[in-house]
Amino acid sequence: MIRRLLIVNRGEIALRIVRAARELGLVSIVAHSDADVDTLAVHQADEAVCIGPAQAAKSYLNIPAVIEAARNCQADAVHPGYGFLSESPEFARAVKDAGLIFIGPDADIIDRMGDKAMARQTAIEAGVPVVPGSPHAVEGLEEALSVAEDVGYPLLIKAAAGGGGRGIRVAEDAEMLTKQLPLAKSEAQSAFGDGRVYLERFIARARHIEVQVLGDGKRAVHFFERECSLQRRRQKMFEEAPSPAIDSTIRKRLCESAVALAEHVGYLGAGTLEYLFDEKTGEFFFIEMNTRIQVEHPVTEMVTGFDLVRAMIQVAAGEPLSIAQNDITLRGWAIEMRINAEDPDHDFFPSLGTVKKLVWPTGPGVRIDSGLYEGYKMPPFYDSLVAKLIVWDDSREHALTRAGRALDEFQLQGFTTTAGLHRRLIEDSAVKAGAFDTVFLERWLAEPASNHANVKEVINEQ
Amino acid sequence: MIRRLLIVNRGEIALRIVRAARELGLVSIVAHSDADVDTLAVHQADEAVCIGPAQAAKSYLNIPAVIEAARNCQADAVHPGYGFLSESPEFARAVKDAGLIFIGPDADIIDRMGDKAMARQTAIEAGVPVVPGSPHAVEGLEEALSVAEDVGYPLLIKAAAGGGGRGIRVAEDAEMLTKQLPLAKSEAQSAFGDGRVYLERFIARARHIEVQVLGDGKRAVHFFERECSLQRRRQKMFEEAPSPAIDSTIRKRLCESAVALAEHVGYLGAGTLEYLFDEKTGEFFFIEMNTRIQVEHPVTEMVTGFDLVRAMIQVAAGEPLSIAQNDITLRGWAIEMRINAEDPDHDFFPSLGTVKKLVWPTGPGVRIDSGLYEGYKMPPFYDSLVAKLIVWDDSREHALTRAGRALDEFQLQGFTTTAGLHRRLIEDSAVKAGAFDTVFLERWLAEPASNHANVKEVINEQ
Repeated sequence: MIRRLLIVNRGEIALRIVRAARELGLVSIVAHSDADVDTLAVHQADEAVCIGPAQAAKSYLNIPAVIEAARNCQADAVHPGYGFLSESPEFARAVKDAGLIFIGPDADIIDRMGDKAMARQTAIEAGVPVVPGSPHAVEGLEEALSVAEDVGYPLLIKAAAGGGGRGIRVAEDAEMLTKQLPLAKSEAQSAFGDGRVYLERFIARARHIEVQVLGDGKRAVHFFERECSLQRRRQKMFEEAPSPAIDSTIRKRLCESAVALAEHVGYLGAGTLEYLFDEKTGEFFFIEMNTRIQVEHPVTEMVTGFDLVRAMIQVAAGEPLSIAQNDITLRGWAIEMRINAEDPDHDFFPSLGTVKKLVWPTGPGVRIDSGLYEGYKMPPFYDSLVAKLIVWDDSREHALTRAGRALDEFQLQGFTTTAGLHRRLIEDSAVKAGAFDTVFLERWLAEPASNHANVKEVINEQ
Repeated sequence: MIRRLLIVNRGEIALRIVRAARELGLVSIVAHSDADVDTLAVHQADEAVCIGPAQAAKSYLNIPAVIEAARNCQADAVHPGYGFLSESPEFARAVKDAGLIFIGPDADIIDRMGDKAMARQTAIEAGVPVVPGSPHAVEGLEEALSVAEDVGYPLLIKAAAGGGGRGIRVAEDAEMLTKQLPLAKSEAQSAFGDGRVYLERFIARARHIEVQVLGDGKRAVHFFERECSLQRRRQKMFEEAPSPAIDSTIRKRLCESAVALAEHVGYLGAGTLEYLFDEKTGEFFFIEMNTRIQVEHPVTEMVTGFDLVRAMIQVAAGEPLSIAQNDITLRGWAIEMRINAEDPDHDFFPSLGTVKKLVWPTGPGVRIDSGLYEGYKMPPFYDSLVAKLIVWDDSREHALTRAGRALDEFQLQGFTTTAGLHRRLIEDSAVKAGAFDTVFLERWLAEPASNHANVKEVINEQ
């Protein structure tokens, strides 16, 4: 049983967990850095403890300091939030070794799902589709052409030692593969000192769709999917639930595959399985699992009516899942817009300052998760997410309209944010139609703003 | 079709309608008094028009001024909100005569349902139970005893010319009726100059439960019930949906009776049927219908997922109901706490002032409907409701806990409100158990506060 919960995080997610703890009747204790003594999470928490200086390496990532703080404040459980130590198997192990409950899965599961190759292997074992590819490095052309028949074209020739987008070539057909393979191998040899290459299906216009799961170690349920294709530099900007790209048949298969994987590993806690979805073929492919609560969890909470942060604490405390899959249904549509302290007109350069004025949108279907308050001075040490503006309505069209209304009501003075960008983005015809993939947003951002829908005009034309 | 909507109201409901108008793509125009030029509804509206001085009789109740304003600003529809002109058949008629759409039912329906005797007669015609009573004044004792057998004991002997609680006696049985009847008649004669008396069933521990309906003139649907028993001086303070007092069988009968009555009169618009519910017998009795949107509509919106203000505008514009009864389902539990600018420690004396600091609760399951903002100066002319704090969660117990969390986060400096009272009220064991009737709150308020649960202690014991 948990009575005192140490929250090792900051910003909106620390506040989110403080609220869940309060609603569960737990004493909430926020572990914070020197720079975060004056945050809303610390103000709202029952107790707070400083774990080190501003630099995350010395505070939010400092396992010995966190464990010591947990002991000193007599916490019996630790919630890592997202980022920082949330997916560190060492941390999960250290928490357990200290005799405390880690709010998340076992360190072994974090290890297993944190390694992309092992996660892929686990998915295959559980019968979950993964991006088709060669199981081993391909050697000669004959082997490559044979493997390519299984993988399908277009495909990627990927250097085994590459990463971060480096060492990748595209082959549209067998002829191109024949030409590119020797070039790819010699390039990989010279670039990485390792000439081995793999083949992998190239999914040209993929969507990023993810499934929320919750397990108690024995049984798992899903809370349907989130559409997260609108990304910039692999950072999600705008998420929604459900996905406008899939129908109920695909939804069922997708979500059941996620439960199969979660149950295969005996998953305990809240987790998210990320998939690529190929709209042309209707195929989905597991890519990775995040073994923690995610930034965009509120859209799932709003369409399913379940409190995921509360639930993940309950299963960590040893309570079995109290819900059946059939208890979880979708209602309406939810959209989350990430309000980052960045200047979209200057390459998203970080924007710092003190909150001089702050007016949240309110009224029907609006949820705010944020640590901002008037007078808050942003420290320069951490990520730029300062608020999540989440809206719900009975349809996607209505939810988009409500998003516009909420953005119009939102007032923040003190620094620049991405709010104005969202106001333009939701007027885009592709966004309105739900027709986008993971490269859409970067393309859209590269266009001159004069190409985008003029928000004032759009409003006046309504 | 509606393009320009004149909103003849103030405070939170004017803002609520501005938001609905915006989300429907309508131009919103707020008709306001001199005293309300600087309200949030006026700020947020597309346009605003002054209709007279502060006194409501000269502005918000001034039908010629409103009609002139509607003409001048080329409105094609008028939304009256609640209170003020919202249930004035003269106003509904004047709006129609000016060639504009009234957002509400026809004047004839307002007339019919606004007269208690006619509303009762209409309910009887529609097969909806009303409080059992003598159809006519009773004359001799023999007649009275015979009627009393049908009405049932305990019963009330009510002077035909009485009202406001005057001229009422209780008879527990035939013996008491025999004694009280001549006394009641002579007392009525001397007090009101009219010796006629009626008999009516006395429902000792009644609940106030109401059903939300929406009709398009042909068909009507219900959105389940609201529990509104927690009242002070017949003013609701705390409402919830659904009611903790009824089961699904009674719920079905109750809600279907409301639809029967709405369809019997060909109701168009949003309406609420108020009932007394006798927990001992499981009987419910129609008492009156409100032919407008109600203050407490958000709890219904939160448990059903429908936007009632949007829907009432759509049906007024001539759109047929697009939903079937089966589309409307209950999810979770919602609670509304009325934040009035009154001092509960001084007999709810009105509290006035300027908002110096304002921090709304945010996070999951919290909705705020309010016209307050920092710097807002409350005018002394209108009612004391300044905010509605509405919470939702998956169960009543969780919703009550969330209500406490939200109240704890809420900060308002500048004047006294009923927020602290709500914080104590939700810790009361009877409120937690859902065990209260329409006189509970007044009794509770009459107790010394030291009898009430100590909120700090309660929190620490969790």
